[in-house]
Amino acid sequence: MSGGGNDGGDRVREFGDFRKRMNERILAEDNQVVRRFFALDTQTYRAGALDVKTKELLGLVASMVLRCDDCIAYHVGQCREAGVNRDEFFEAFSVALVVGGSIVIPHLRRAVDFLDRLESGDAVPAGHATHD
Amino acid sequence: MSGGGNDGGDRVREFGDFRKRMNERILAEDNQVVRRFFALDTQTYRAGALDVKTKELLGLVASMVLRCDDCIAYHVGQCREAGVNRDEFFEAFSVALVVGGSIVIPHLRRAVDFLDRLESGDAVPAGHATHD
Amino acid sequence: MSGGGNDGGDRVREFGDFRKRMNERILAEDNQVVRRFFALDTQTYRAGALDVKTKELLGLVASMVLRCDDCIAYHVGQCREAGVNRDEFFEAFSVALVVGGSIVIPHLRRAVDFLDRLESGDAVPAGHATHD
Amino acid sequence: MSGGGNDGGDRVREFGDFRKRMNERILAEDNQVVRRFFALDTQTYRAGALDVKTKELLGLVASMVLRCDDCIAYHVGQCREAGVNRDEFFEAFSVALVVGGSIVIPHLRRAVDFLDRLESGDAVPAGHATHD
Amino acid sequence: MSGGGNDGGDRVREFGDFRKRMNERILAEDNQVVRRFFALDTQTYRAGALDVKTKELLGLVASMVLRCDDCIAYHVGQCREAGVNRDEFFEAFSVALVVGGSIVIPHLRRAVDFLDRLESGDAVPAGHATHD
Amino acid sequence: MSGGGNDGGDRVREFGDFRKRMNERILAEDNQVVRRFFALDTQTYRAGALDVKTKELLGLVASMVLRCDDCIAYHVGQCREAGVNRDEFFEAFSVALVVGGSIVIPHLRRAVDFLDRLESGDAVPAGHATHD
Repeated sequence: MSGGGNDGGDRVREFGDFRKRMNERILAEDNQVVRRFFALDTQTYRAGALDVKTKELLGLVASMVLRCDDCIAYHVGQCREAGVNRDEFFEAFSVALVVGGSIVIPHLRRAVDFLDRLESGDAVPAGHATHD
Repeated sequence: MSGGGNDGGDRVREFGDFRKRMNERILAEDNQVVRRFFALDTQTYRAGALDVKTKELLGLVASMVLRCDDCIAYHVGQCREAGVNRDEFFEAFSVALVVGGSIVIPHLRRAVDFLDRLESGDAVPAGHATHD
Repeated sequence: MSGGGNDGGDRVREFGDFRKRMNERILAEDNQVVRRFFALDTQTYRAGALDVKTKELLGLVASMVLRCDDCIAYHVGQCREAGVNRDEFFEAFSVALVVGGSIVIPHLRRAVDFLDRLESGDAVPAGHATHD
Repeated sequence: MSGGGNDGGDRVREFGDFRKRMNERILAEDNQVVRRFFALDTQTYRAGALDVKTKELLGLVASMVLRCDDCIAYHVGQCREAGVNRDEFFEAFSVALVVGGSIVIPHLRRAVDFLDRLESGDAVPAGHATHD
Repeated sequence: MSGGGNDGGDRVREFGDFRKRMNERILAEDNQVVRRFFALDTQTYRAGALDVKTKELLGLVASMVLRCDDCIAYHVGQCREAGVNRDEFFEAFSVALVVGGSIVIPHLRRAVDFLDRLESGDAVPAGHATHD
Repeated sequence: MSGGGNDGGDRVREFGDFRKRMNERILAEDNQVVRRFFALDTQTYRAGALDVKTKELLGLVASMVLRCDDCIAYHVGQCREAGVNRDEFFEAFSVALVVGGSIVIPHLRRAVDFLDRLESGDAVPAGHATHD
């Protein structure tokens, strides 16, 4: 039983603080490959031939089939900001579920819980500076 | 250090409640693919040419090599209800360990801890309605 | 060195025949779970809240980060039929590459090779009946 | 398009020869960890609290969700020797498919093709000495 | 949002106790395959043609690309004891990040947090007897 | 049975040509994220706090546990150029085998086969320009 999802808003905020603090700590380190990777990661989701909404949906489904809760929460937040509505979320979820199998279900539960919190105002999406 | 396993019975119950609540929420959504997937998932473990015990063992080992603690806990509970004894559990664990490697060990620890709780009555297996 | 990608058009056709033949063989079997899964898989990519093009792009990126060449080739074909252009393909590829890492590169090479063949008319996309 | 499955009996035999030759070469090397791992791998599938048939089915499903064609072919052969019939094979396949998702389908096609060859006498299962 | 990393020293100690207790429980079980696997796992990281430091770095990077927080924390501790300095850690992290992709980032954050705790004396590395 | 490994020197050369050609084709495309990723990938393995030999061994073990034959062949070649000897190769292989499990064995066979070819002069390592 991995912890997660079934936590209150406090835990969501605590996680956001942790992510922000560790990202700063990692980027303060003198390692150019790591820094460039973080910059590239941010660049990946900028509008181009595909719009931000589509790219964030791609990031979300990739995170779901690879089963990374932190990445899923990040992209759920970004998708919502890009205008993805609930029906669209569930269609993206359904692709992840069918491609990735029942092993995705626990992550789907936590994704839906996080989406519920965002919609109810109980959680805030992660900031833009550095992500995943 | 992923949270999990080393939690008391309260956390086990809290997780069970979370799963039940989120499953209901997911199935209340108007997405036929997701609903059908959940129904298919339940159907998969029904007795057929292979009995329930064997199928649940297959689900357990699949969950272990894919390293999903929630799925492992679910199938440990189902296996126990289907009559899998401790020696059989450890032989199934040994297949998962050898096929999946030392990366499975942290999940093995949490699986054994969950099994211990089930045997001592400190945890109850998840319900049947919807699973994983 | 996994075989693949660097094969001529003959091998592409041979693979298409193999897939078609085996799908028929699998669906002829009296196993309802397997048959329903195949039906659900087809249903997943139908237009809904998200259009077919977006859903196929989701399937493509999911297949790339999970590193399945057959699935990638299938979705490259479907994406092309849904009107995905070369710039859009490369942006989807870039999401898969950044999320999934350099381990995706060999599959990217084979994906681009397959796309080149489709554009030059050397390969035909897989049929619609049953897929992946 | 990964090569495999859609090969004739010659390729199956060629692969069997390659595996046998490389296993001998690996075990001739003076590395105790590797040798012990191979011995442990063989020991894992011996009859104990669970019979050989169940253990081989566990190995098969684990190999399918981890998507390793060579391992799948090996365990299909071992399962068949242990008396697994076609209906039982398809129920094991269905567990792997539902747990692992549509990404398993290309491996399912090659598994069924290999099983067909075994049943028709076109392929012989791998030897017992060392496996996977 | 998987729990982990953003916990205080209490949680680190709690996890260490859990691991020790469960390892003892697992090794007390009469299953020779599991016991031999644990022994082999310990043997793997002993000095040989490669020194302990290099082997622990290999274990660390393998754990990062497979995304197992417990294994990462274990190997970060072992690497530190073997004399890996902060610059070397970040170069190993950079290999894991580039090979494994942005999906590794949440684990990188927790690895750096754990390393920070070790350096500040807030956490102690896991013992030698049995690991991962 | 994935094709690979058990191919003659012709196939090795054919693969090298394919990789070179496709890398050129990918880098000719006007997609900055993809190009930067390729540049970053090359930069990752340059000498720094860790020497090239150690970094290539890290890349090799990461590729083995993620089970990518092309990446394994690439890093086996680079490791050999960096002076890794046969005993060191097998110790790196043993870490990958124990961490990743028996599912790594088919890739180990192909890695040893490729190493044998390099040592006998039957194969040449991939070029330096762009890799994986």
